[in-house]
Amino acid sequence: MTRPIDFYFDFISPYAYLAATKIDVLAAKHGRDVDWHPFLMGVTVMQVMGLKPIMETPLKSDYALIDRPRMARLMNVPLTIPEIDGLNSVAASRTYYWIREKNPELAKEFARRVFNRLWVQGRDITDVDAVSEEVDTLGVDTKELRAALEDDRVKGLLRGAVEAAVERKVFGSPFFIIDDEPIWGADRFWMVEHWLKHGNWDPAPE
Amino acid sequence: MTRPIDFYFDFISPYAYLAATKIDVLAAKHGRDVDWHPFLMGVTVMQVMGLKPIMETPLKSDYALIDRPRMARLMNVPLTIPEIDGLNSVAASRTYYWIREKNPELAKEFARRVFNRLWVQGRDITDVDAVSEEVDTLGVDTKELRAALEDDRVKGLLRGAVEAAVERKVFGSPFFIIDDEPIWGADRFWMVEHWLKHGNWDPAPE
Repeated sequence: MTRPIDFYFDFISPYAYLAATKIDVLAAKHGRDVDWHPFLMGVTVMQVMGLKPIMETPLKSDYALIDRPRMARLMNVPLTIPEIDGLNSVAASRTYYWIREKNPELAKEFARRVFNRLWVQGRDITDVDAVSEEVDTLGVDTKELRAALEDDRVKGLLRGAVEAAVERKVFGSPFFIIDDEPIWGADRFWMVEHWLKHGNWDPAPE
Repeated sequence: MTRPIDFYFDFISPYAYLAATKIDVLAAKHGRDVDWHPFLMGVTVMQVMGLKPIMETPLKSDYALIDRPRMARLMNVPLTIPEIDGLNSVAASRTYYWIREKNPELAKEFARRVFNRLWVQGRDITDVDAVSEEVDTLGVDTKELRAALEDDRVKGLLRGAVEAAVERKVFGSPFFIIDDEPIWGADRFWMVEHWLKHGNWDPAPE
């Protein structure tokens, strides 16, 4: 049995969305499952690392504006960049871990719908109503969801997941860990693929 | 006539060294020249962007320790990571632009020797004596060099180059600009190659 790929991401990261459209298919080609782990870049990048968000970083923000659409084009997936003030993924991420306790596959489907809502439809995912709409399409009880999101135990699931990600030194989104190899970035699919194919870092044959 | 690739880098960046071992060969395969432009990450990353060096950034520094040797292995080039306090590339970069005025090809050869000294031999490049040793191997007069390094006009060449890089929104090392497309990182050679081959961002045929 090969180990699953751990896929860490924040819903607010467009590069995570891009990666999310491809990673399961790539993994399956090599007989691997993928465990999805949403985390909060606000905690990791700002609090732990002491950095600013990309779009508030001079020069890098200019680059992102050019790079995001061309990466989407290269990966052949639609991408809309909405302008949303105060965008955050706390409710969506708590919901993910709450659904996951019952049904990991359904949680993944929820995550896909959140990504789609934000990065394809260009609609906000921040508030409970938005999250609740997506949950409803999956046939999950939205009243139960609203109660769960107020529940300290459910809040603790996300807090634990964010801490576990920092513990594993995850700092960017998307971030993969495959057989203990950490790989950061949607631009490193070539490296993910190399490892899945060869299981080592010897140069690829020409 | 196709335009040359602009290759921006700081000598103190191991990823720049890795890129420097490959970029000219890749460019030549597609009929392109490469213009090398050393700049100072200390100015760009710290002063303009307000960030910390990678090795002082929590989590990212752990990643770099794992990533640098495996990238070198993948690219099939030797890499030594020396521990040098106060490493900086000001003298080497000034020297580069001074030689370049006389002979661009010789300047590139000088740059290769600086990269080799630091990242293969693991020897410091910071002080004038170190730079002078490498200049000497190229048959350039080291007395002239020492005078040049004190010359305000020569200092201005580097200052101008650093400003020009910021102007073009170069923020990382290595950084390529090809036909106005900015591409950051030694892990994006696949993207450099895609552009050189296709001249657009349409998905590569399977």
